[in-house]
Amino acid sequence: MTAGTDVHLAYNDLVTLVQRIFVKNGASEHNARILSENCASCERDGSLSHGVFRIPGYISSLNSGWVDGQAVPEVEDCGPAFVRINANGGFTQPAFMAGRPLLIEKVKASGVAILAIRRSHHFSALWPDVEPFADEGLVAFSVVNSMACVVPHGGNKAVFGTNPIAFASPREGAAPFVFDQASSAIAHGDVQIAARAGHDLKPGMGVDRDGEPTTDPKAILDGGALLPFGGHKGNSIALMVEILGAALTGGYFSGEFDWSGHKGAQTPFTGQFFVVIDPERGGNNTFAHRVAEICDLVLEAGQDRLPGDRRHATRAKAATAGIPLSAQNYQMLTALAKA
Amino acid sequence: MTAGTDVHLAYNDLVTLVQRIFVKNGASEHNARILSENCASCERDGSLSHGVFRIPGYISSLNSGWVDGQAVPEVEDCGPAFVRINANGGFTQPAFMAGRPLLIEKVKASGVAILAIRRSHHFSALWPDVEPFADEGLVAFSVVNSMACVVPHGGNKAVFGTNPIAFASPREGAAPFVFDQASSAIAHGDVQIAARAGHDLKPGMGVDRDGEPTTDPKAILDGGALLPFGGHKGNSIALMVEILGAALTGGYFSGEFDWSGHKGAQTPFTGQFFVVIDPERGGNNTFAHRVAEICDLVLEAGQDRLPGDRRHATRAKAATAGIPLSAQNYQMLTALAKA
Repeated sequence: MTAGTDVHLAYNDLVTLVQRIFVKNGASEHNARILSENCASCERDGSLSHGVFRIPGYISSLNSGWVDGQAVPEVEDCGPAFVRINANGGFTQPAFMAGRPLLIEKVKASGVAILAIRRSHHFSALWPDVEPFADEGLVAFSVVNSMACVVPHGGNKAVFGTNPIAFASPREGAAPFVFDQASSAIAHGDVQIAARAGHDLKPGMGVDRDGEPTTDPKAILDGGALLPFGGHKGNSIALMVEILGAALTGGYFSGEFDWSGHKGAQTPFTGQFFVVIDPERGGNNTFAHRVAEICDLVLEAGQDRLPGDRRHATRAKAATAGIPLSAQNYQMLTALAKA
Repeated sequence: MTAGTDVHLAYNDLVTLVQRIFVKNGASEHNARILSENCASCERDGSLSHGVFRIPGYISSLNSGWVDGQAVPEVEDCGPAFVRINANGGFTQPAFMAGRPLLIEKVKASGVAILAIRRSHHFSALWPDVEPFADEGLVAFSVVNSMACVVPHGGNKAVFGTNPIAFASPREGAAPFVFDQASSAIAHGDVQIAARAGHDLKPGMGVDRDGEPTTDPKAILDGGALLPFGGHKGNSIALMVEILGAALTGGYFSGEFDWSGHKGAQTPFTGQFFVVIDPERGGNNTFAHRVAEICDLVLEAGQDRLPGDRRHATRAKAATAGIPLSAQNYQMLTALAKA
C-alpha cells in the first residue's frame, strides 16, 4: 500500500485491529472487544466523529488512569422491570452488555423495563446502544449526560453536557427508525471547524465567556459555551437528561465530576438511562407496520430523509465494498496496534 | 356583582360549576367531574388556554357527536408492567383515571410501567396528567399526538399535531419539576394573536400554503402550517410522539382521523402514552435531593425560572385569593350551567 491510498477493511478486520489497540492500552480482552465493535460500527456507518477519530481520546483517557479498562461491572436485579448497573469506573458499553440479557428478559416478561447505569464513561454515539433493540422488535429510548459545556437557556454558566437522547423503533419493511441527537444547538466539533474556516455561526448556537450570545465560534471556544437546541424547549430536554442520566441512575451530573488529577482524561464520568418497551404487548400486533406508515407519510410530505437513513445506506455500501479508511488513519491504527 | 368586576372562585366551586356544564352537554356525572377538575386546575394555575377558555370547544365537540361524554373506558391488564385502555371514543382523562390505580400498583411492584390509551380525545394540557405522579414520588413521562397542523422539517404538508411531551419529577423541598411543551415551534393561539395584532413572527415558526417558510401569521393561518421547534431535532421528537402516542397505543395518527361527519368537532381523536418510573427502585434514595441540586444549579447559572414555577406560584396565590375569572367568563359559565 502506498501512502495516500484509501484502504477498505472488512468489519471484523477493523474490530480485531481496534481491539488490539484497546488491549495494548490497558483494557481487558473482553472490554476491548465490546469497545472495538462499537467503534468499528460507527466508522462503518459513516458516524465518523465517534469512529476511529476517537481512538487517541480513548487511549489518552485510559493512560491517564481516569477510566478503568479492566472494570468488571456489577449487575443488580431490582425487581420485575428494573436493572441497575455499577460500571465501577469503566466504559458504559461493557456494563450495558453485561446487563442487556437481563434487561431483555424483563422487557419480555413485563412489557417494559429500565436499565440504569452509573459510574460509567460514555465516549461514543448512542445509536449503537438503542438500534439493536429495534432489530429485536423492541422500542428503546436512552439518554446519557456528559460534561458541562452547555449553558441553560437564559443563563451564563455551563451546567449541561451535550446530553444526547436516542430512540429506536422497529419499522416494517425497512431498517429501524432511529434518531440520536444532542440537546445542544450544535456539536463542539462543528464549532471548531467554523473557527478554523473563519466563518460565523448562525445565531442561537452559543455564548461567549461573559454569557452573552455570540455568532463568533472563537468566542465560544475561548471560555464560552454552547446553547441548548430550540431555546427553552431544548433546555427542558437537556435538564431531563441530567435527571434521568445522573439523578436517577446514581451517577454524576455533567458539571460535577473532577478529573483534575488525571492529565489527558477526556471521557465524561456520568450515567446512562434506558427504557425498553415491548410495543406489541397486549395484542397491538400492527406496531411495526404503523411505524412504517407514519415514516412514509413524513417522506411523502417532502422531508428528504429520516434520521438514520444515511447511516443505513453507508452501512449497506460498507457491507460489499468494505469500510473505507484514509491511508493516514489506517497507518495510525496499525502503528498503535504494534506499539 | 356588577358587569366588568372580576370574580374569585374557590377551586371546588369552579369544579362544581364546570361539572354542571359538562353534564348539561351530555357527559356522565363521573366523566364530567374528572373533566371539570382538569379544567379548573388549568384555570387555577394560570394555564388559561386550557382552562375555561376551552369550554365552548368542549361543548361544540360533545354536541357534534364526535366525542362520547358517556364513554366507559375498558382497562386491560397486559402483564406486570403494562396497561392498555380503550377509551371508547370518550375523553382521555376519564380513561386515564380508570387505569391510574392499576398503573401505580404495577410501578410500585415492578419499578416502571406503561399506560397506553387509545380511541381517546385529549383537549387539555398534559401537566395535569403527569404532575400528580411526582407528588407521589414517581417520575412520569407522557406524550399525546393531536391533529395535523405541523409540517415535517423540510416538508410542505402537515403530518404532525402540536404533539406535546410532558415530564414530571419529584424535587426535594419544592414543587415537582414539571415541563409540558408542544413539539411545534409556536402554539396556534399565538399565531392567531400575532395575526390580529398585525405583526410578523420570528423566522422558523411556520410555512405558507405552498410549504414555503413565512413570517406572516396570516399566511400560516390561510392554508399554511406550523413547523417543529428546533429544526430537525424537534422534528424527530414530533415523529416519536406519533409513534408512541398512536402506533404504540393503537390510536390514530394526527392526520388520520375523519371528523367530517361531525360539524363542530374540535377534539383530536388519537392516543396517549405514559411511562411512569419508581426512581428510588434499587436503593437510590437520594433521587429527589439530587433533582433539587440540579434545578438549583440551573437557577444559579442565571436561568430566571424553571418550567412549571410560574404555574406553581399562580396556584399558591389562588389557594388564598381564589381563582380569578373575568366577569365575562363567569357570566358565560353561569349561563351555560343554567341553560
